[in-house]
Amino acid sequence: MTTVKAYGAINATDPLEQLTIERREVGPHDVLIDIDYAGICHSDIHTIRGEWGPITYPQVVGHEIVGRVAAVGSDVTKHRVGETVGVGCQSSSCRECAQCRQGHDQYCLKGNVQTYDGVDVDGTITQGGYSEKTVIDENFVVTIPESLDRAKAAPLLCAGITLYSPLKHWGAGPGKRVAIVGMGGLGHMGVKIAAALGADVTVLSRGTRKREDALAFGASRYVDTTDAEAMKELAGSFDLIVNTVSAPIDLASYLTLLDVDGALVVVGAPPEPFAVPAFSLIPARRTLAGSTTGGIPEIQEMLDFCAEHGILPETELIEVDDINAAWKRVLDADVRYRFVIDTKTFR
Amino acid sequence: MTTVKAYGAINATDPLEQLTIERREVGPHDVLIDIDYAGICHSDIHTIRGEWGPITYPQVVGHEIVGRVAAVGSDVTKHRVGETVGVGCQSSSCRECAQCRQGHDQYCLKGNVQTYDGVDVDGTITQGGYSEKTVIDENFVVTIPESLDRAKAAPLLCAGITLYSPLKHWGAGPGKRVAIVGMGGLGHMGVKIAAALGADVTVLSRGTRKREDALAFGASRYVDTTDAEAMKELAGSFDLIVNTVSAPIDLASYLTLLDVDGALVVVGAPPEPFAVPAFSLIPARRTLAGSTTGGIPEIQEMLDFCAEHGILPETELIEVDDINAAWKRVLDADVRYRFVIDTKTFR
Repeated sequence: MTTVKAYGAINATDPLEQLTIERREVGPHDVLIDIDYAGICHSDIHTIRGEWGPITYPQVVGHEIVGRVAAVGSDVTKHRVGETVGVGCQSSSCRECAQCRQGHDQYCLKGNVQTYDGVDVDGTITQGGYSEKTVIDENFVVTIPESLDRAKAAPLLCAGITLYSPLKHWGAGPGKRVAIVGMGGLGHMGVKIAAALGADVTVLSRGTRKREDALAFGASRYVDTTDAEAMKELAGSFDLIVNTVSAPIDLASYLTLLDVDGALVVVGAPPEPFAVPAFSLIPARRTLAGSTTGGIPEIQEMLDFCAEHGILPETELIEVDDINAAWKRVLDADVRYRFVIDTKTFR
Repeated sequence: MTTVKAYGAINATDPLEQLTIERREVGPHDVLIDIDYAGICHSDIHTIRGEWGPITYPQVVGHEIVGRVAAVGSDVTKHRVGETVGVGCQSSSCRECAQCRQGHDQYCLKGNVQTYDGVDVDGTITQGGYSEKTVIDENFVVTIPESLDRAKAAPLLCAGITLYSPLKHWGAGPGKRVAIVGMGGLGHMGVKIAAALGADVTVLSRGTRKREDALAFGASRYVDTTDAEAMKELAGSFDLIVNTVSAPIDLASYLTLLDVDGALVVVGAPPEPFAVPAFSLIPARRTLAGSTTGGIPEIQEMLDFCAEHGILPETELIEVDDINAAWKRVLDADVRYRFVIDTKTFR
């Protein structure tokens, strides 16, 4: 065991605080990573607050991790010491089921090991990236292309792949009319990626504060969702809508914005079920779907795509001691568009 | 105008009664059909009772029509006098929009003309098949293959195509695990067609009364949906589920029966919205979709497929005077599996 500094929660309600946690010894297929940057994802807060079910405390979250390989196990072939690498939402899976064999470990039929609050293969509870170092199986470590700014890349590991995967799966590209609902950490990556894929992108968001940003990120149109008249004009006009909002939302009205055979994909998970009238789907063969992150091969593909197209999240770099303040700002939707913790600032 | 006998409703609540209605003169592209058989669809009852919105009375329903061509307009090329033909749910459409150009007139972007209670191209309200004769544009008349029993074929025009279209669209075939929820007029056609397409078919239905029928129709398995233990064992085991039940249903529990990337397609429309938890979709990239009938080319394809595979609905032939009693039995779910009216029995 190795002892490392981390910043985590001792219960569901108190502020996070600096802790000491243990990482396992580097096994034959493990990579020891000196963490440099960790993104703050809204999921981190939902998890610690127990909003997605009970968890184990103390708990260190963070599943958008960028760092350098400090050591490798005896049998590691995929990564080398000194390489800049990343870790996302999953840090292990069965690697044997029908989904894992296709590289879709995000849908591992036995349930993959989440990077935090997961039950690891050795039975311990995983602890995430708000930390100095971590030890991860080489098969769940991806390579950060050199041309990507290391200090900004971390949010690609969750926010980036969570949008890239459904955009690719549902065919966002030239000639496709794509709407992104909500333009926060997830949504702003969706706009950049969908535009780079060649789709015609519309942002649907409350108010007009983010209009200029949306257009700068590559959207061809921005519609204020509180403008009933403008929304009405969008009826039947999209092939694909990705809903990134995790607050309750009138999904039925968004379904009517889809053309025949269009799909609305939810990547944000409000606590209450969606109310879906049969007649919002049947008369135009519409689909409502859900999607989560992406498999390791697809995460690597996304990173390479972002490097090729110069896509990075908009980030605000903070120190470890700023984490609690940053969480408050995430809850207040006061972030453009993702916080990244400089994990070299542990006291 | 021609005056013909029909059996219809003068308001939402009284029994149907024999009426006299008018059919338009046969235009250059019209076909005059002597109706021989008309199926009774649950939609007929929903419509007359005003459960899907207000309608125009008097109203004659019926959108599963089989008859013989009695006359054709001067420019008709698709049908000839004496031919056995069918008419389904739509009797006209714009024929110009992106959907119509692909033969998907069921999704006509301008809204097609329904065979009953539709606003026809001349502004009149369409009247359906519980009638002696009708006049229909040749482009919305299909050919009933000679090898199909004319007295049984009518329900293919709605029940048959409503199941055939989604089964084809979502790839039911060899290697696909398909579940049909509910085995009434729609569901029993789904079992027969999915089995003929080569899929492995499971019927999910309340109780055990229909088990033997399900297996005889081609299902490899029947599961009583009130058997919680048996239902639990089906988790993640289907590629496609088609829900034919138009009563409220716990859709979320059916979604969990889908494997990764599976689709649940609803063709029955309960009045209340479905409650769909985000987490019933997201962790396995599942889709919920809706589908309605099929386009004219696909209806013809379905009829030819049914002729080739010897597929016919299970029907009970009744006389015109039995219609009100038959409706009551439809509402009591006391029909195996579809009533067909012998429309040669008008007084």
